[in-house]
Amino acid sequence: MNYRPSTEETRFLLEAVLDAPRQLAALPPFAEVDAELQGQVLDQAATFVADIVAPLQRTGDEVGCRLEGGAVQTPPGFPEAYRAFVAGGWPGLAVPVDDGGQGLPAVLEAVLYEWLAAANHGFTMAPGLLHGAFECLRHHGSEALKQRYLPKIASGEWLATMCLTEAHAGSDLGQVRTRAEPQADGSVRVTGTKIFISGGEHDLTDNIVHLVLCRLQGSEVQAPAGPKGLSLALVPKQLDDGTRNAVHCERIEEKMGLHGSPTCVLRFDGATGWLVGEPGRGLAAMFVMMNSARLHVALQGIGLLDAAWQKADAYAHERRQMRAPGATGDAASLIVEHPAVARVLDTQRAWIDGARLIAYRTAMQLDIARHGADAAAREAAQRWCNLVTPVLKAACTQQAFDGASACLQVFGGHGYVREWGIEQIVRDARVTMIYEGTNEIQAIDLLVRKVLPDAGAGLAATLLALRNELDASRDADADVQRRLAQLRYLTTQLAMAAHARPRLAYEVADDYLRLVMLAMLAWAWARIEQAPGADEGHARAAAAFRRWVLPEFEMRAGIVKRACEETIAQQAGAMR
Amino acid sequence: MNYRPSTEETRFLLEAVLDAPRQLAALPPFAEVDAELQGQVLDQAATFVADIVAPLQRTGDEVGCRLEGGAVQTPPGFPEAYRAFVAGGWPGLAVPVDDGGQGLPAVLEAVLYEWLAAANHGFTMAPGLLHGAFECLRHHGSEALKQRYLPKIASGEWLATMCLTEAHAGSDLGQVRTRAEPQADGSVRVTGTKIFISGGEHDLTDNIVHLVLCRLQGSEVQAPAGPKGLSLALVPKQLDDGTRNAVHCERIEEKMGLHGSPTCVLRFDGATGWLVGEPGRGLAAMFVMMNSARLHVALQGIGLLDAAWQKADAYAHERRQMRAPGATGDAASLIVEHPAVARVLDTQRAWIDGARLIAYRTAMQLDIARHGADAAAREAAQRWCNLVTPVLKAACTQQAFDGASACLQVFGGHGYVREWGIEQIVRDARVTMIYEGTNEIQAIDLLVRKVLPDAGAGLAATLLALRNELDASRDADADVQRRLAQLRYLTTQLAMAAHARPRLAYEVADDYLRLVMLAMLAWAWARIEQAPGADEGHARAAAAFRRWVLPEFEMRAGIVKRACEETIAQQAGAMR
Repeated sequence: MNYRPSTEETRFLLEAVLDAPRQLAALPPFAEVDAELQGQVLDQAATFVADIVAPLQRTGDEVGCRLEGGAVQTPPGFPEAYRAFVAGGWPGLAVPVDDGGQGLPAVLEAVLYEWLAAANHGFTMAPGLLHGAFECLRHHGSEALKQRYLPKIASGEWLATMCLTEAHAGSDLGQVRTRAEPQADGSVRVTGTKIFISGGEHDLTDNIVHLVLCRLQGSEVQAPAGPKGLSLALVPKQLDDGTRNAVHCERIEEKMGLHGSPTCVLRFDGATGWLVGEPGRGLAAMFVMMNSARLHVALQGIGLLDAAWQKADAYAHERRQMRAPGATGDAASLIVEHPAVARVLDTQRAWIDGARLIAYRTAMQLDIARHGADAAAREAAQRWCNLVTPVLKAACTQQAFDGASACLQVFGGHGYVREWGIEQIVRDARVTMIYEGTNEIQAIDLLVRKVLPDAGAGLAATLLALRNELDASRDADADVQRRLAQLRYLTTQLAMAAHARPRLAYEVADDYLRLVMLAMLAWAWARIEQAPGADEGHARAAAAFRRWVLPEFEMRAGIVKRACEETIAQQAGAMR
Repeated sequence: MNYRPSTEETRFLLEAVLDAPRQLAALPPFAEVDAELQGQVLDQAATFVADIVAPLQRTGDEVGCRLEGGAVQTPPGFPEAYRAFVAGGWPGLAVPVDDGGQGLPAVLEAVLYEWLAAANHGFTMAPGLLHGAFECLRHHGSEALKQRYLPKIASGEWLATMCLTEAHAGSDLGQVRTRAEPQADGSVRVTGTKIFISGGEHDLTDNIVHLVLCRLQGSEVQAPAGPKGLSLALVPKQLDDGTRNAVHCERIEEKMGLHGSPTCVLRFDGATGWLVGEPGRGLAAMFVMMNSARLHVALQGIGLLDAAWQKADAYAHERRQMRAPGATGDAASLIVEHPAVARVLDTQRAWIDGARLIAYRTAMQLDIARHGADAAAREAAQRWCNLVTPVLKAACTQQAFDGASACLQVFGGHGYVREWGIEQIVRDARVTMIYEGTNEIQAIDLLVRKVLPDAGAGLAATLLALRNELDASRDADADVQRRLAQLRYLTTQLAMAAHARPRLAYEVADDYLRLVMLAMLAWAWARIEQAPGADEGHARAAAAFRRWVLPEFEMRAGIVKRACEETIAQQAGAMR
């Protein structure tokens, strides 16, 4: 059974709950992107995903990628599907028209990538890396580089990579050693070995554009150690004159999952490249695309969970085992009638649609941050993105893995064998908790780098905006408002305690991130439930959310509160 | 890095905390099994596991099992290791001396199997099935069957299987269709197809003894439908005259993990067998070994988690990334100094040693239930086993998967690739949540079948025994006592509410099981902490338990409480 996107559910969330068509149409570049056009794009995307990408899911896992003589063969069907993806103009969906794209909102691209990942996570890795490279080059590349590379990347004719990690430098990019020696002609010669390079080598496109984090080093220049010494170089697989650049794929990793995507060890042997952006500003050049890349990983998580849910839901509606409590007669019941199975399914729906709402809204904030007419609105949107993106990245990918595993459990022993495809989703999903910054780093990013520096003022402003969308005369809304207030109070408490003992913030960063996510999910379900067109399925998911998911809020709040109190008591003790 | 058992930690738990040597020596068959002998057995077991079994862990996963021409080849080294296992007398460790075994306590066998699973889960599956078959045959087999098969099974010369599941009959064994036709000579002819048969075919032993759940059917007998019509037949791979019986391995499954163990589809084509136990009493015959089999699965979970912890702990002590908060100087810190990593490691230790204590105590209760001199003590021990075994099975296997995944996360991207062996543990561990009764079935077994029928009286008696071992003048002990009391009160509330709406118990059975486990872990850590010889590592794990693990207790209690209150309010509303 292959994944099928549900345009209906997506349109309900975008239109009935988020009022997206009207809000997007208020942005100058999207004045003509009305609900009908958005609906058409979504329908076409759904068809492409279901017909072309989803059928390759099993092959991607079972055949996987092969390295032979330095060349990587992707799974059968992948090159053709990728060509169709390019031919359909999908890579440039949200690329500005001036840059050769279709100029559509980021939120549509977000939906596309959610569906792609749900249908075939491995395949999605290849085009998924284009967007970051495009943004990075567009903002920081020289005119000459942009002319040569930007249109090819925008169209997807050439794919791209981000070459950051080295064996000894994972989360800690400051330890990167790959060096770039400046040449007389303005180019650099790049030497070093990068690992974990998704799509570092493949047969999908003729050329591959590598963006390589490196350190300038030559007779006249010696970059300082640490992150400030890092630069970014563009290193193509093929040079303009058609010769092969000195970039070699040494190995592809044997991984837990994601077999459809080649994870390469790339050796740069004095390869020719050109700096992108200023020397020593390599990290800054990369970080321009971080929010959208991390949002895409969150959407992968949501998509993978939805794919797992679809499989488990279908199985639960055809498999019969034992009589469910309350069932009459002797016949075995559909397993969906067993409370434990229903709870798993409803809980995952609560996560999927709640997280979708927050993720789609975040993608809309990306659009507003870029194109909003009003500076204050742009700033508020950017603040939303900065705060909410790490929350979504960590929480959605954790739930993708945990929830897919819960869906596997619905199959009993059948879930553990390849046949039903559910164990593949669990294996594939696991990587999303790691890449684009581990989930622990997202939590530290949120709490230590974004929330605490202004003692929670930015977060408070964002929460206030949510609060104002609620109607306190409804019980459910009032409950959400109470939680938002509790979160603000806890943030203040945490800011004080972490001031006294900075390590505390690192200890409870994960709990804090979960608190923000759960409060936002509560907000999301309050909104969904009362939107016109909400149906019985939404009511069931909302109830499951309140019964089985939301209680974690009190637990996490208790953990953070006790940790703060312990710290403050220790400080008081130390002062006595 | 291969797993290494820690005899020191095990002896600390057994001797200093559980007072096992004295308690076991009080049982007549173990009068001479003193602490020294137990220590020697554990030392030898640790050596065997570390030297012979652990080195085959990677091969087991990477080469796996192969089916060719109906014969299954286990991974290279497995047959030799299994022969060494038999030669060492390990299969008969806890088999009574009269039956050709070594007559040692079940608790030592439990430790052995924890270590085996930690070192090589796939390998462990083969001998792991012997014990159930031995018990089943010993209690229910005819004298003739016992004479022919029992010694070979006791020694491990022949391996055994349990053939229960069919494609349409997983958790619901009442749907089993395999039929057994009575023959004039007292044998039966068995026909049907069984799936998910671990070790259904292999090259470890000359013969394999299958215990097959089936339904009598012939000209003079027609078993009723449902579980009451089930019988158990012994069907050997080789008949006494050396001919091959009509049992065929049709396929081995491609699985998420556990590649070292062949999971077979077995076709019985009118195979010759003999009934074990009475016709129609097949389930009862099997259930005799259920507590010990489920306890072994719980120990697999604990072992797998310990193996994952060992890997992550070693990696965290050699890998350096970024400066930890509070670290001085420019150098990157060991990742164990980062709070998020330390939290993961300490939390898993809290689970491992806490769960070990409960599991070892449960294994001792098995010994007491079998050999206790006093009927009341035997009965209390049996009650402990009945109540605590499903709790351990579900909670330890869930934590094995979740905790191994958390340990994988410590490796960052390196965790997702095969190289470090941590992702194998996550894949292998996943099956333990499913087999020997899914974790959901354990929860229903606990709450619906064992706790509610006597309105929690049996559980209350067991909790009271724990309570009496605590000293309320210590804060930590008083806290545990409070939780035990809370659990008793909640059980009463739940019994009332479930009486009004039986479905409720099925909805919150998982939460209830977690509550029992967390309360027992709290008891375990109170005991460990104050045992003579408890060290700084134990103090750290105890603190981690209280900070990060125990808060789930309130969350689950809240979920159960609210569900009860909702039910009672609905009932009250309906009566108005």
